[in-house]
Amino acid sequence: MEKGKKIWQSSSGGLHPLVEAFTVGDDYRLDGEVLLPYDVKASKAHAQMLHSIGVLTQEELDVLLGALGEILTKWQEGEFKVLPEHEDGHTAIEEYITLKYGDVGKKIHTGRSRNDQSLVMLRLYMKDKLSELTSGVQQLASLFENKGTEASDVLMPGYTHMQKAMPTTVGLWLGSFACALRDATIAMEAATRQIDQNPLGSAAGFGISHLQLNRQMTTEALGFERLQANSLYCGFSRGYFENIVLQALSQCMIVMSRFAVDMMMFTQQETAFFSLPDEFVTGSSIMPQKKNYDLFEIMRANGRVYGSLQQQVQQIVTGLGSGYHRDLQVTKKAFIEGVSLCSQSIELMHQIVPALRIHQERLRSAMTRELYVTDEVYKHVANGMAFREAYQKVKAEFFAHTTANAKASASDNGAAATH
Amino acid sequence: MEKGKKIWQSSSGGLHPLVEAFTVGDDYRLDGEVLLPYDVKASKAHAQMLHSIGVLTQEELDVLLGALGEILTKWQEGEFKVLPEHEDGHTAIEEYITLKYGDVGKKIHTGRSRNDQSLVMLRLYMKDKLSELTSGVQQLASLFENKGTEASDVLMPGYTHMQKAMPTTVGLWLGSFACALRDATIAMEAATRQIDQNPLGSAAGFGISHLQLNRQMTTEALGFERLQANSLYCGFSRGYFENIVLQALSQCMIVMSRFAVDMMMFTQQETAFFSLPDEFVTGSSIMPQKKNYDLFEIMRANGRVYGSLQQQVQQIVTGLGSGYHRDLQVTKKAFIEGVSLCSQSIELMHQIVPALRIHQERLRSAMTRELYVTDEVYKHVANGMAFREAYQKVKAEFFAHTTANAKASASDNGAAATH
Amino acid sequence: MEKGKKIWQSSSGGLHPLVEAFTVGDDYRLDGEVLLPYDVKASKAHAQMLHSIGVLTQEELDVLLGALGEILTKWQEGEFKVLPEHEDGHTAIEEYITLKYGDVGKKIHTGRSRNDQSLVMLRLYMKDKLSELTSGVQQLASLFENKGTEASDVLMPGYTHMQKAMPTTVGLWLGSFACALRDATIAMEAATRQIDQNPLGSAAGFGISHLQLNRQMTTEALGFERLQANSLYCGFSRGYFENIVLQALSQCMIVMSRFAVDMMMFTQQETAFFSLPDEFVTGSSIMPQKKNYDLFEIMRANGRVYGSLQQQVQQIVTGLGSGYHRDLQVTKKAFIEGVSLCSQSIELMHQIVPALRIHQERLRSAMTRELYVTDEVYKHVANGMAFREAYQKVKAEFFAHTTANAKASASDNGAAATH
Amino acid sequence: MEKGKKIWQSSSGGLHPLVEAFTVGDDYRLDGEVLLPYDVKASKAHAQMLHSIGVLTQEELDVLLGALGEILTKWQEGEFKVLPEHEDGHTAIEEYITLKYGDVGKKIHTGRSRNDQSLVMLRLYMKDKLSELTSGVQQLASLFENKGTEASDVLMPGYTHMQKAMPTTVGLWLGSFACALRDATIAMEAATRQIDQNPLGSAAGFGISHLQLNRQMTTEALGFERLQANSLYCGFSRGYFENIVLQALSQCMIVMSRFAVDMMMFTQQETAFFSLPDEFVTGSSIMPQKKNYDLFEIMRANGRVYGSLQQQVQQIVTGLGSGYHRDLQVTKKAFIEGVSLCSQSIELMHQIVPALRIHQERLRSAMTRELYVTDEVYKHVANGMAFREAYQKVKAEFFAHTTANAKASASDNGAAATH
Repeated sequence: MEKGKKIWQSSSGGLHPLVEAFTVGDDYRLDGEVLLPYDVKASKAHAQMLHSIGVLTQEELDVLLGALGEILTKWQEGEFKVLPEHEDGHTAIEEYITLKYGDVGKKIHTGRSRNDQSLVMLRLYMKDKLSELTSGVQQLASLFENKGTEASDVLMPGYTHMQKAMPTTVGLWLGSFACALRDATIAMEAATRQIDQNPLGSAAGFGISHLQLNRQMTTEALGFERLQANSLYCGFSRGYFENIVLQALSQCMIVMSRFAVDMMMFTQQETAFFSLPDEFVTGSSIMPQKKNYDLFEIMRANGRVYGSLQQQVQQIVTGLGSGYHRDLQVTKKAFIEGVSLCSQSIELMHQIVPALRIHQERLRSAMTRELYVTDEVYKHVANGMAFREAYQKVKAEFFAHTTANAKASASDNGAAATH
Repeated sequence: MEKGKKIWQSSSGGLHPLVEAFTVGDDYRLDGEVLLPYDVKASKAHAQMLHSIGVLTQEELDVLLGALGEILTKWQEGEFKVLPEHEDGHTAIEEYITLKYGDVGKKIHTGRSRNDQSLVMLRLYMKDKLSELTSGVQQLASLFENKGTEASDVLMPGYTHMQKAMPTTVGLWLGSFACALRDATIAMEAATRQIDQNPLGSAAGFGISHLQLNRQMTTEALGFERLQANSLYCGFSRGYFENIVLQALSQCMIVMSRFAVDMMMFTQQETAFFSLPDEFVTGSSIMPQKKNYDLFEIMRANGRVYGSLQQQVQQIVTGLGSGYHRDLQVTKKAFIEGVSLCSQSIELMHQIVPALRIHQERLRSAMTRELYVTDEVYKHVANGMAFREAYQKVKAEFFAHTTANAKASASDNGAAATH
Repeated sequence: MEKGKKIWQSSSGGLHPLVEAFTVGDDYRLDGEVLLPYDVKASKAHAQMLHSIGVLTQEELDVLLGALGEILTKWQEGEFKVLPEHEDGHTAIEEYITLKYGDVGKKIHTGRSRNDQSLVMLRLYMKDKLSELTSGVQQLASLFENKGTEASDVLMPGYTHMQKAMPTTVGLWLGSFACALRDATIAMEAATRQIDQNPLGSAAGFGISHLQLNRQMTTEALGFERLQANSLYCGFSRGYFENIVLQALSQCMIVMSRFAVDMMMFTQQETAFFSLPDEFVTGSSIMPQKKNYDLFEIMRANGRVYGSLQQQVQQIVTGLGSGYHRDLQVTKKAFIEGVSLCSQSIELMHQIVPALRIHQERLRSAMTRELYVTDEVYKHVANGMAFREAYQKVKAEFFAHTTANAKASASDNGAAATH
Repeated sequence: MEKGKKIWQSSSGGLHPLVEAFTVGDDYRLDGEVLLPYDVKASKAHAQMLHSIGVLTQEELDVLLGALGEILTKWQEGEFKVLPEHEDGHTAIEEYITLKYGDVGKKIHTGRSRNDQSLVMLRLYMKDKLSELTSGVQQLASLFENKGTEASDVLMPGYTHMQKAMPTTVGLWLGSFACALRDATIAMEAATRQIDQNPLGSAAGFGISHLQLNRQMTTEALGFERLQANSLYCGFSRGYFENIVLQALSQCMIVMSRFAVDMMMFTQQETAFFSLPDEFVTGSSIMPQKKNYDLFEIMRANGRVYGSLQQQVQQIVTGLGSGYHRDLQVTKKAFIEGVSLCSQSIELMHQIVPALRIHQERLRSAMTRELYVTDEVYKHVANGMAFREAYQKVKAEFFAHTTANAKASASDNGAAATH
C-alpha cells in the first residue's frame, strides 16, 4: 500500500491537487488534533465485535488492539500526525497499522464505511463534550449563586432601556445568570439523550448485508444508551446531531454574552460598580490610562461567532437530501470550533465570577432618587389610590422637582443646547 | 381616559406619528390576532390573586372577570379589535374595561407591568403551542412509520452524492423520518420543561415591593409547573425563551425540509418512484404538461425562512444587557411567524404522508446492477478475502463491464463528447 | 372563466386548500399591497409591444390600455383587491379584464409567463425603491453633516471599549455617519447598475420561440438601461437580484443601528450629552420618571431583523439549481419587508437628526483629565522622548494621581469591596 | 524590552494566561500567515512620512527601511514567525527591530496606534485581493462564455421545479453563469471604490494632535485613491468595510454554488449530460462503482460556510457603538477565511469549466416530447388562437397521449401503486 493512498483511488493518476485541497479542507487537521482518540476507541470496539463474529482471529485482534493502543500513546505524546495526504484520521490509522503489521490493518475496515466510522467518532466526541460542559455549566451556575449570596443585600440600580429604573440587588442580578445557566442544562441533557445512540454498523447508510454485525455489542462496549437501528437515520444524523448539540450549547453562549455586556456597562467610569483584578484587564498602546475589559468584548463577539457557526451547520443540513453528501464533512469544522469556543468561554468564566469585585461605595452613591419613584406610586396604591392616578401624581411631582433642580444648576436644555 | 392613550403619556402632545409607527410595528396586530386570549386568561388569574390579597373587592373582581369574559367572547366572534393606537393588546383590554365599567379597569394594572403581562401571555402561548406541536410531531412520526411498514419490503435505490449507491427499502427510508421526528420531541419536551415557569408578578423585572403578591397562587391557577422566582431572570427570559422554543421546533423543520428534497428528486420524470394525488400538485401557466411539486419547494424554502426567523431572535438577545430593552418586543413577530410556519407545515405533512403513492414498477426497474456491487465485495470478504482486495477486484470487473457496454452503445465519452 | 381559476387548473377538482394556503402564502397580499402598479406598468408596455408585432389589433390594445388604467385608478383608491383565491396579482388583473372585456383579457398573457411577469414587476419596484432610497440616504448624509458643522468645535469624550479615551468633537462624531452614508450610496448605485436590465420576454426562462417578441422595445418603454438577453439568466436573477439590493441597503441599516447604539449611551443619565424632544421619547407604564429612547432600541433590533431578512434571501438562492423553483416566490416577502424597514428607518432618521439637542454643559463637564493623558505622551514625544518611554512615564504619573485621589475619597477598591 | 511584552503591560505581573489566549485568539496566526507583508508595506510608508516631517532622521529611516525589508525577506522564506506571545504582527515587527537595532524600533510607533496600523494593513490586503479576484472572476466569465460558444447549438432540456420544461441550449445555460459573473464584478468594483481610502494617521480614532502627520503623503505612497479624513470614520470602518468586501464577493460564491448544484443533477446516472475527467472525481471506500462529484458538494457547502462568515462579520458590526471595541478584532478571522474560500473556489473553477465534457448523445436522447408541448401551444397562438384556449387544447392532447402510453406499459399509477 502506498502511503496516503485512498482505497477508492485508481492506480493510474490521482486526484487533481486543487480538487484534493478543496475537498479535504481542514478535515485531516481536525481529525489529527481533536478526534483521533475517539476513532481509536471506536475502532477497538469494532475489532472486538469483528472477532466475536469470527471475522478476526484472536491473534489478529491482539495485533489490532495493540496497534491501536500504540497509536493513542503516540498521539498523546504528539508523535502521531494526520497529514493532508491522509485526507482523514481513518486513513492515517489504517496506514499505520498496515505498514507496521501487514494485512491485518486492512481487515479492520471490514463491515464499516468511513461514514459510520466518522459518525461514531463524532458521536463519542459530542457525548464526551456534552458531559464535560454540562458539568462545567452547573458549576458556573453555582459560582454565580455563591457570589450572589455574598451580596444578596447589596442594593444596585436596576436598569431598563439602559436608564436607571428601580432598585434591585447584586444578589438578584448575579442570581439571574445562575437561573439561566441551570435551565440551560435541561437543554444540554436533552441533547445528550437525543444523540446517545450508536451509529456504528450502519456503514454507508445501507448497513452490511453479508455479515452479521453485532451492533448491540458495540453499543454496550462504547457506552451508548441505545442502538441507532435505522441505518439511513444514522447517515441522516451526520451534521443534524451536530446542530442539535450546538443549539443546546448556544444557550450558555447567549447567557455569557449578556453577562459580558452588563459587565461592560457596570465597569465604565460612569458606573464602576464592579471590577476585575488587573490580570483580567488589558490596556491601550496609545492611551496609558486605559483599563479595558477586552475579555467581555471578545465574549460578546464570540456570541455572534458561535451563532454563525451554529447557523452554518443548520443551513448545511437544511434541505439536504437523504444519503451521504460531502457537504456534511464541512460541518465538522464549525462544530468543533463551536464546541471549543463554548468550552473556552466557560473555563474563563470559572475564573471571572469568583474574582469579581463589588464596589459598594459606588453602588451606594448610584442609588439616586429616581429609582424610588415607583415605590412612591405603590405607597399611594397601598393607601387605596388607583394605580393610574398614583402614577400621574408621582410623575407630576418628580418632574416638578427635577425641573426646578435643572433650572437651578445647568441650563442644559435651554439656551446652552444647540438645536 | 382618552381612547388609546398610554398610561405614560403626558397630557400635552403625544408621540410623533413616525415614532409611534416605528416603535409599535406589528405588535398590536400580533396581540389582536394571536395573543389576546392568553392575556385574558392571565389577567383573570391576576385579578383573582389581587382579590385574595385584598386589593380588589369581591364586587370589583366579579366586574373584572365578567368584563374579561366578554372580551374573550367578542374576540372569538371577531369583534374585539386591537388597533394601532392601542399600541398593544394590554391597553386595548384596559381601555375596554375602563370605558364600560369605570375605574375598576385601572385597578387591574395594580401589581404588574406591561413587561410581566407580556411575559405571561407569551409564556402561556408557547406552552400551548409546544404541547400541540409535540403531539402533532408524534402523530406525524407514526404516519411515517405506518406508511413505511406498508412498504417495508419494497426495495429502492439508496443514493449517496445523488448517485445510486446500494439497495435500501422504502420502509427504511420512511422510517428514518419517523426516527428523526420522534427524537425531535425530546427537544420539544425539554423546551417545555425550561419555559414552564410563571413570570407573572415580576413586574418590570424588579418585582413589587409595596404589595404582597401571591405569585404561587397565579402559578397554580395558570397551570405552570413552577414559579420563576428571580424577577430579573423573568425579564431576561423575554426573547431568550422564544429562542429556546424556536430552536426545539427547528429540528422538525429541518426534517421536513429534507423529506421535501428527497421527494423532489423521487418525483422527477427520471425517477418517478413516488407521486401525490393531483390535488397536491400545481401546474405551469405556460407549459401545459407540467405537474410540479411546488409544495415541496415551499417546504424547502420554509426551512430557510424558519432558520432565519430563529436566528433573528437569537441574534437580538445575544449581547443584550440585562433589563428590558424594546428590542425584545421585536422578537414577537419572528417568534409567532416561526411557530405558525412550523404548525402549518406539520398540518400539511399530516395530509401528505398518508397520500403518498409508491410506484413499485418504477422502483423495481431502478434496481440496476451498480447497486449490488458492494454486495459482491462482501461476498468475497465472507469467503475470506481482505476487504481492500475484494474492493479492487470488483471495481476492476465493474468498470471492465460498463466500459464494454459503453463502447457497444453510445460513444458518449468518446468522439461525440465536446471537450 | 371562473373567478380566481388558475390557467393550469384542470376542470375537475382543484388544489387541496391546505396546499393552496401553503404555497400561496403572503404572495397575493404583497402583490395587492405593493407590487400591483408595477405589474400594470409592465403589462401596458407588453401590450404595446404585442400590438407592434401584430399580435394585438389597435382596438384590442386600446381596450387593454384602458382596462389597465382603470385597474390602477381603482387600486389607488383602494378598490382593487388581490384575494387569496387569485393566488397573485397577475391573475387578479387578467380576471378583471376578462370578466369585463372578454377574450382580449386572455391575449395579454401571450408571449409571457408568470415568471417574467413577476420578474419585470419586481425589477421595476426595486429600481424605483433604489432610486428613492439612494436619494434619501444622500439627504440623510447631508443632515448629519449640517448638524455636525453646527457643532464642529464642541468637544466630546471619545470612547473606546465603552471607556473614555481621548477628546473628539461632536462635529467629527456626526460627520463619521455622514461619511459612512455617502459611501453606502456607492453600493446602492452599483446595485442599481446591476439590476437595471429588462427580463420581460424571457417567459419561463426559455424565451418564446414562435413569436418574434421585440424585447428592445419594452426595454426602452420601461426605461431599463439594457436588455437582459440571456433568458436563463433572467430566471436566475429572481431572488438573486433581490439579495444584491438587500445587501446594498444593509450598509445604511448598519450605520443607523450604530448611531442608535451611540445615542443610547449618550442619552443615559450618566452621560446625557444629547437628547431628543419629548415627541420622540416613550415612557414606562410602571415607572413615571422614565424617558426611554425606545426608538433607538427598535432601530438596533431592526438592524438584526434586516440582517436576517437579507440572509434569508441569500440562503434561499444559494445552492439552488437553475430554472424556476417555487422557493423563489418566498423571497418576495423578505425582500419587501427589508426594503420597507430600510425606507421607514431612513424616513425617521430624517426627523431625528435635525431634532438632536446637544447639551454643551454636560459635554463640557465630561471632558475630564483622563482624556488628555495621550496628549501628554505626545508632548513628550514632540520634545524628543521615544514613544514607549513617554507612554510609561505618563502612565506612572496618571495612576499615582488617581490612586491618591481614590485613597482620599471612596475606598472602593479597598476594604469596602466584596471579593 | 522583554520579548513579546505589550507596550501597555505593567511591569509587575501580566495577563492571566486564559485571558490572553481568549482575547488573542487566532489573531497572531492570521497576521503571521497572511497579513504581515501588508503591515511591512504600510510601516515603510509611515516611516518615510515620519522622516519627512522631521520625526525620524535620515539615518533612522534607513535603519528602519532596511529592517522592514529584512523582515519581509525572512517572512517570504518562512523564517519570520508571529508567535502567540506577540499577540499580533505589529508587536512582532517592533520587537524584531528593537532587539536588533535598538531604540529606533520604538520610534516607528510614533504617530500611530495599533488601530490604524491594523486598519491600513487590512485595507491594503482587501484592495489587493479585490483586484486579484475581480480579474479572476472576469476570466472565469470568459471561460464560461467560451465553453458556451462551443456548444451554442447543442440542445438540452430546460428544467423548472426539477422537472423537464422546455428546450434550451448548453450555450445558453453556460452563458447564464458568464452573465452573472460579469455583473458580479460591478459589485466588486464598487466595493473597491468604497474601501480605497487611507486610514493611516487616524491613530486610535482620534487622530494625533501633537504631530503634524502628512496623511496625504502616505495616501499617495500606498496607492490609495483618497484619504479617509474623518478619524472616527476610520475606526468605524473596521469590520464594516470587511463586510462590504465579503458581501461583494458573496455574489460569485452564490453563482458557483448554483453551478455546482446544476452539475450534481446533470452528472447523475439518470441524466449524465456532462462529466469531468477522473482527476476531478472521487470514489467511495465501500462502493467500488462510485464516481462522486464531491467537489460540487463541497462547493455547495462552501456557499453556506461563506454566507455564515459574511453574516458573522455583519452581525458583529451591527449595533456596535462608535469607537474601537475588541469585538472588531474577531472579524479578521471570518474575513480572511471568507476571502480565501472565494479565492480557492475561483481558482478551482478555472480548472473545471474548460475540462467540462458535454455528452451530446445523452443530451439528444433527453430531448423528449414534453419539452415541445409549449411550442405546440404557441403554434396555435401564431395561428390566431387565444393563449388560454391553445393551452387547454394541448394539455388535453398531451395527457390523453401519456395516459394511453401509461396504460399500455407500466401500470404505475394503477394497481401496482401502494397507496
